[in-house]
Amino acid sequence: MNRTVKIIKADGKKEFELIEQLKQRSREVEDAVVLSVTEIIDQVRQHGDEAIRAYTEKFDKVSLSSFEVPKEALKKAYEACSIRDSLSRAAENIFAYHEKQKQNGYSMTREGVFIGQRVRGLHRVGLYVPGGTAAYPSSVLMNAIPAKVAGVKEIVMITPPAKNGQVDTNILAAAYIAGVDRVFSVGGAQGVAGVCLGTETLPKVDKIVGPGNIYVATAKRLLYGSVDIDMIAGPSEILILADDSAKPRYLAADMLSQAEHDTLASSILLCRSDSQAEKTADELEKQLLLLSRKEIAGQAISGASAIVVCDSVEKQLDLANLFAPEHLELMVKNPFDYLDAVENAGSVFMGENAPEPLGDYFAGPNHVLPTSGTARFFSPLSVDCFVKKSSYIYYTREALEKVSEDVIKIAEAEGLTAHAQSVKVRFENEIR
Amino acid sequence: MNRTVKIIKADGKKEFELIEQLKQRSREVEDAVVLSVTEIIDQVRQHGDEAIRAYTEKFDKVSLSSFEVPKEALKKAYEACSIRDSLSRAAENIFAYHEKQKQNGYSMTREGVFIGQRVRGLHRVGLYVPGGTAAYPSSVLMNAIPAKVAGVKEIVMITPPAKNGQVDTNILAAAYIAGVDRVFSVGGAQGVAGVCLGTETLPKVDKIVGPGNIYVATAKRLLYGSVDIDMIAGPSEILILADDSAKPRYLAADMLSQAEHDTLASSILLCRSDSQAEKTADELEKQLLLLSRKEIAGQAISGASAIVVCDSVEKQLDLANLFAPEHLELMVKNPFDYLDAVENAGSVFMGENAPEPLGDYFAGPNHVLPTSGTARFFSPLSVDCFVKKSSYIYYTREALEKVSEDVIKIAEAEGLTAHAQSVKVRFENEIR
Repeated sequence: MNRTVKIIKADGKKEFELIEQLKQRSREVEDAVVLSVTEIIDQVRQHGDEAIRAYTEKFDKVSLSSFEVPKEALKKAYEACSIRDSLSRAAENIFAYHEKQKQNGYSMTREGVFIGQRVRGLHRVGLYVPGGTAAYPSSVLMNAIPAKVAGVKEIVMITPPAKNGQVDTNILAAAYIAGVDRVFSVGGAQGVAGVCLGTETLPKVDKIVGPGNIYVATAKRLLYGSVDIDMIAGPSEILILADDSAKPRYLAADMLSQAEHDTLASSILLCRSDSQAEKTADELEKQLLLLSRKEIAGQAISGASAIVVCDSVEKQLDLANLFAPEHLELMVKNPFDYLDAVENAGSVFMGENAPEPLGDYFAGPNHVLPTSGTARFFSPLSVDCFVKKSSYIYYTREALEKVSEDVIKIAEAEGLTAHAQSVKVRFENEIR
Repeated sequence: MNRTVKIIKADGKKEFELIEQLKQRSREVEDAVVLSVTEIIDQVRQHGDEAIRAYTEKFDKVSLSSFEVPKEALKKAYEACSIRDSLSRAAENIFAYHEKQKQNGYSMTREGVFIGQRVRGLHRVGLYVPGGTAAYPSSVLMNAIPAKVAGVKEIVMITPPAKNGQVDTNILAAAYIAGVDRVFSVGGAQGVAGVCLGTETLPKVDKIVGPGNIYVATAKRLLYGSVDIDMIAGPSEILILADDSAKPRYLAADMLSQAEHDTLASSILLCRSDSQAEKTADELEKQLLLLSRKEIAGQAISGASAIVVCDSVEKQLDLANLFAPEHLELMVKNPFDYLDAVENAGSVFMGENAPEPLGDYFAGPNHVLPTSGTARFFSPLSVDCFVKKSSYIYYTREALEKVSEDVIKIAEAEGLTAHAQSVKVRFENEIR
């Protein structure tokens, strides 16, 4: 039988080559996209709302008299939303999980010294929400709630209008539940430029977050520095580490849940026997047929996906840490025995009752996670991403005098005499 | 008298124009630099140590048999260092301040549910330290200590060798005090590429931090994504908010301490009277003459610097928050009355006994701060910059069953049937 998925037998070489090769995959941004987005940003900078209106007509095929979605529309959408109770229960879990991430400032005293760090929510944050089939209410919750918990004063959502000028009901309902302050039906690079630069009607934000197509991602990248941005996400990934207790049906279902996102998505299974590998491969064939997005999932499974048969749990853990997956499933009997050895992973799903979609939608941890091996040094989206910190320093004259010698010595060793002088001047005779 | 510094009288317009104009200034990176750094990175990727050796001969004019500085050399440098006691006392304060930033992980339970967040130090971090006259031991302390506190397993310092092949004694002493693990005398774009990509002798890092010239900054920018980097710093800034109690001598000295860093540095004084503005301008002339770096400081003072006479404290605070300075001095009688109204600043220096160099070297807070108005959304370098977080999720079968309906509903509303399927498969009849 001609299987969709590759099965590789670990031999100390092939498996490492595979992982390295999969890590290399990334979306290339064509120069044409950069050029076109640069033009859009320039137009929005120069012409504000007028430019945004023109691009909305061109790209979204809709002419809007006003960009802002009235506040009442959010409440109405919530009342009309068929999944509002499920979304509300999810939001409750997400709020509870993120509340724990809230950092307080601190202060310290020594004799005559008062220093500390202050933590404040950002003033205004933009949240991009894609339109069309990629309009995900879960994404609204996951991006808006940490900002809300951080104390951001105003969360501004932007999303492209449908051809009838409307915004998806589930999206508006999620915005209502999460406490989004204002919603504007503008999207694409023009929407991103609008809130990053500010226009007559769009308020200027300090940071913009949320997923988007290549035009949106490029706009964020080009405007980074004048505002902050979240990570630019690569294609989604799951790596499943299985022992012999893992059921091929579950393994296949979980691989497919990631694969349906994107033809470039990567689903990797590290298992322990040929028969488990083969049974899972067979399950993939069967389950693929049942999916509404089977074309996409099939391409992902035959593409950047693989089943690797490993001869030891150490090998499995080495490969997992090397790949540093966005999602790691520990499909093993005693997942708590493995957690400590996991060095690099965005989110860890432990045991057979924690399929990845549970985390995507409901459990509470954030679903915005580092991709493409960046879990080695990046972290999930969190409350920390929506705060700014400042330090402060107060010394009495006596306290400064006590350390003045040390400060002057270091400054002079560094050849910075004006640094030294700013301390000296405070202790010289006031009349020269 | 022809003064070096501009004095501007706030009129509701001029002062805002000035601030906006000063915020625009930035270093332009020439295409030639990007091309040349791209070439260096490619060579290092292909030829490893051999390429680094060749570039070291070309740029640093020194031929090294081994890149690594032996561990004993650090201790010896410490023993020979004339400012070691001052550096040790500074390090003690910096350690104490950053210890408070350490975040623990957390976990939460609900019935049958165990979720949480884990926080770990990065595995290996690179610290770039410039050579020559910009070899600042304070910078070693400020970059290495938060990494140490975060629990980074290995801190690798790289710094260009002098023509005699040696590394500056104060730099090595600071590395010894901060607990740097390994030191390599390689610098420039080739050094950055070496540790970001890994070579035969240079270990591959997960993140690289530290200041550097335009080649170093460009290499960091180009390698971002395969490793994490710290902020790319713009020119340094100080904004001083003064009331009538502030002494012109102190004001001038503090403006100059920032100005001596760089001809592009910006020193702004917001004061309350013409006479205070004029007296400070006169002091600037006098004190400039005394400085070893008077050329640089003079250019900065006549360049992106100014004294603005404001008619109210509200105006002063508005301008300060708009500029969002790296360093903010509150040179006022009761600085604690102002702190709450400060929205955007990297570090706040309160009262006349907290000159900026006190924070640069000694008080404890980090001196790596957001520049160019980015204090609106960026924060000082901190322990958070050297950790990676992972979430984890464990559910019992019963707990999953209880929420399965919610997860399936949201997945189906999003059109992601494989997501729904990964939950369903766990509760279907096992024999199909």
